[in-house]
Amino acid sequence: MPQPEFLPIQWKSTHLSLLDQRALPGKKEFLEIHTMEETIVAIREMAVRGAPAIAITGIFGLTLGAKEKQGNLSSVEVDSLIKQMFESRPTAVNLSFALKEAKKRSEGKTDWESIQRVWESYALEMMVEDLRANQMLGENGANLFPKDQNEIHIITHCNTGALATAGHGTALGVIRSLRDQGKKVIVYADETRPFLQGSRLTAFEMMEEGIECYIITDGMSGWLMNQRKIDAVLVGCDRVAANGDTANKIGTYNLAIVAHEHNVPFYVCATKDSFDFNLKTGDEIPIEMRKESEVTQFDFLKTSDGNYLLPEGKTAPFGARALNPSFDITKAKFIKNFITELGCFVPTEISTRLKKV
Amino acid sequence: MPQPEFLPIQWKSTHLSLLDQRALPGKKEFLEIHTMEETIVAIREMAVRGAPAIAITGIFGLTLGAKEKQGNLSSVEVDSLIKQMFESRPTAVNLSFALKEAKKRSEGKTDWESIQRVWESYALEMMVEDLRANQMLGENGANLFPKDQNEIHIITHCNTGALATAGHGTALGVIRSLRDQGKKVIVYADETRPFLQGSRLTAFEMMEEGIECYIITDGMSGWLMNQRKIDAVLVGCDRVAANGDTANKIGTYNLAIVAHEHNVPFYVCATKDSFDFNLKTGDEIPIEMRKESEVTQFDFLKTSDGNYLLPEGKTAPFGARALNPSFDITKAKFIKNFITELGCFVPTEISTRLKKV
Repeated sequence: MPQPEFLPIQWKSTHLSLLDQRALPGKKEFLEIHTMEETIVAIREMAVRGAPAIAITGIFGLTLGAKEKQGNLSSVEVDSLIKQMFESRPTAVNLSFALKEAKKRSEGKTDWESIQRVWESYALEMMVEDLRANQMLGENGANLFPKDQNEIHIITHCNTGALATAGHGTALGVIRSLRDQGKKVIVYADETRPFLQGSRLTAFEMMEEGIECYIITDGMSGWLMNQRKIDAVLVGCDRVAANGDTANKIGTYNLAIVAHEHNVPFYVCATKDSFDFNLKTGDEIPIEMRKESEVTQFDFLKTSDGNYLLPEGKTAPFGARALNPSFDITKAKFIKNFITELGCFVPTEISTRLKKV
Repeated sequence: MPQPEFLPIQWKSTHLSLLDQRALPGKKEFLEIHTMEETIVAIREMAVRGAPAIAITGIFGLTLGAKEKQGNLSSVEVDSLIKQMFESRPTAVNLSFALKEAKKRSEGKTDWESIQRVWESYALEMMVEDLRANQMLGENGANLFPKDQNEIHIITHCNTGALATAGHGTALGVIRSLRDQGKKVIVYADETRPFLQGSRLTAFEMMEEGIECYIITDGMSGWLMNQRKIDAVLVGCDRVAANGDTANKIGTYNLAIVAHEHNVPFYVCATKDSFDFNLKTGDEIPIEMRKESEVTQFDFLKTSDGNYLLPEGKTAPFGARALNPSFDITKAKFIKNFITELGCFVPTEISTRLKKV
C-alpha cells in the first residue's frame, strides 16, 4: 500500500496532529493535540469533519484520555471517558459505533496502559482499514478508464476526499489513483452551494497534490459537457438504498441528470458501509432541512472572531425566505456504476455483490 | 394598460428618479438625477442595469443635457452629447441603437427646447413601448396556465424583472400577470451563481410585490421538482437563434434539462428583438468568459467604500482556478414554448411567427 501524501490525521505516539479544517482553504495549519479535552473541542468545533475521520479522531482522543489518568481505570471511569467523547458530536453514527467497539475491547482491563494500548491499536486499525478501503476503491475506479487514455477530464461534486477520511478519499481517491497510474487528470469541481465544499475543500486537496483543478458553479456542468469531452462524473454518497437510489449532497441529482443527457458516465463512489439494505428505495431516506441563512446569507463564512463576513441584505433582501435541503436522492437509473472497495457494479447488482459480505 | 406598482425608472419632467440598484437588495433608494453627467455616472456605475433600462435612462439623460445648454445647440454639440452618453456603456447595444435614433429625431432642430422635447418624447415612447411589450408578453404567458387553477408554482433563473426593463419584466412579467389575474403564485428563485441575480434582485422584486418567494441554490431544482408539483420554469433570454437555441444566464441549460426530465414545461420569455435570424443555431452564439474571481471570491460583493467583503482564501484557496462563462445555450428541444408580446409558439414556429413582423 503506497503511503498517501496527504494525511489530515497523523498519530505521533504521544499526541495527535490534526489538519485544522476551520482555517481552510486559506491556511494549512496542524493542531497538535495532547489531551482528550483538546480532541473533544476539535471535533465539536469542526476542526475535523467527515464520518470516518471523526470516528478515528475520537478513539485517538480516548487514548490520550487514558494516558492522562496514569493509574488504574475503573469501569465507571472508562464509561465516563466514552460518554464525554460521545457528546462531542452525538449525531455522528460512525463515532458512536466506534465508541461501542472501543468499550468492548477495553473490557476486563483496569490499568491505564493496557487500556490505552487497545484503544491506540483500534484507532490505528480503523485508520489503516479506512485508508485500505479507499485505496482499493480508488484503484477499482481508476481501472474503469481505458488503459491507453492519458488525459482524463472529471467533474466532481462536494468534497469526497482525504479531508473526510483517514486519507485518499472516495471520489477523490479515484482521482488520486488515476494520477498514481501516471495519467494527467483535469478536475472540474462543482463549488457545491450552499456550503461551498467543492471550492473550499476539493480545490484545496487538488492543489495540495498538484492536480489541475477548475472550480465551476453548480449550474455550469451542462455547458462544460458541451465544451469539452468529460470522461466521467465522480461523486461520493451518504447512503445508498437497496435499489441503488443514492442520497448525496444537494446538487448531485441535477448533475446526474445532466450527465445522463450528455452520455457522460456517472459513478457513485462508496465504501460498503454506505449501503443500507433496510431501505428499499430512496423515498425512505429522510432529508435533513438546514438553516435558510446558509443560502441567503452564507452564514458559515465568519471571521476568526466569529463575525459574519456577509452582513444581512448583501446577498439577499432582509427577511428573504429560502429552502435548504442538505441532500437529494439520485435515482438509480442515472447511476452507471457503484465504485466500491469490493469492485464496481451496476445498481441492480447491489444485493448479489454486497449482501454476502 | 394597468399602471405597474414597481417602476425603477421614473421621469419627473424636470428630472429623473432612478432606483439605485447598487444598494439592493438591502436598501431601496432612489437617485434624483438632474444632469446628464449624473446620468452617465449612474449608468457607468451600474445604478441602472439591463439593456432596455439603460437605453431609456440614456435618452432621458440626453434630455437633461439639452436642458442644461439653455440656448441654441449646434449639430456638433448634439453629437458631443450623444458621444458622451454612448461612452457611459459602449457595449450596450440597445443604448447605441437608441442614441442613433435620438440623433435622427433631433436632425434639423437647433433650439434646445425643441431638441429636448423630441428626446423626451422618444424616451417616454421607448418606456411605454417596453412596458406595453412586457405586459402583453406577461398576459400571453399567464394565459398558458389553466383558468381554474388558483395556485401556481414556478421556478425562475436570474433576474428578468422590472429592474432590467421599464417595468413589469419578461419572465417576472408573466408572474406579475398571473398575480393580476388573482392567482396565488409561489416563486422559487434560483440564486444564480456566480452573480446571485436571483437572490439579490428577483427575491427583492417578489418581496416588493408581496409575492411568496423562496430562494434555492442552482443545484436544488431537481430535488424540488420531486417534492412539489412545479407548474412551469420561466426564464428570460439574451439571444435566440433561428432554430430556437437560446442563450441565457449560465445555469439555464441545466435547469432546462432537469425540467425536461420531470415533465415540467420550460418557457423562454422574450420580446421580439431577442430573436436573431442571422444565427442558424446556438453554436453561432459567442459566449463571453468573465473573471475567475467572480466564482472563486464573489468579488462583486463589496462594502460601500469598495473593499471586498470576502477576502481571498475564504471561499477558495489562494490561486485557485475557475471557469466563468457568462451564458449557456439551451437547445431548442428542451423549450416547450417561447412567450412573446406577439403570442406563444414552439421553437419550429419562430420564423413563421416572427419573420413577417
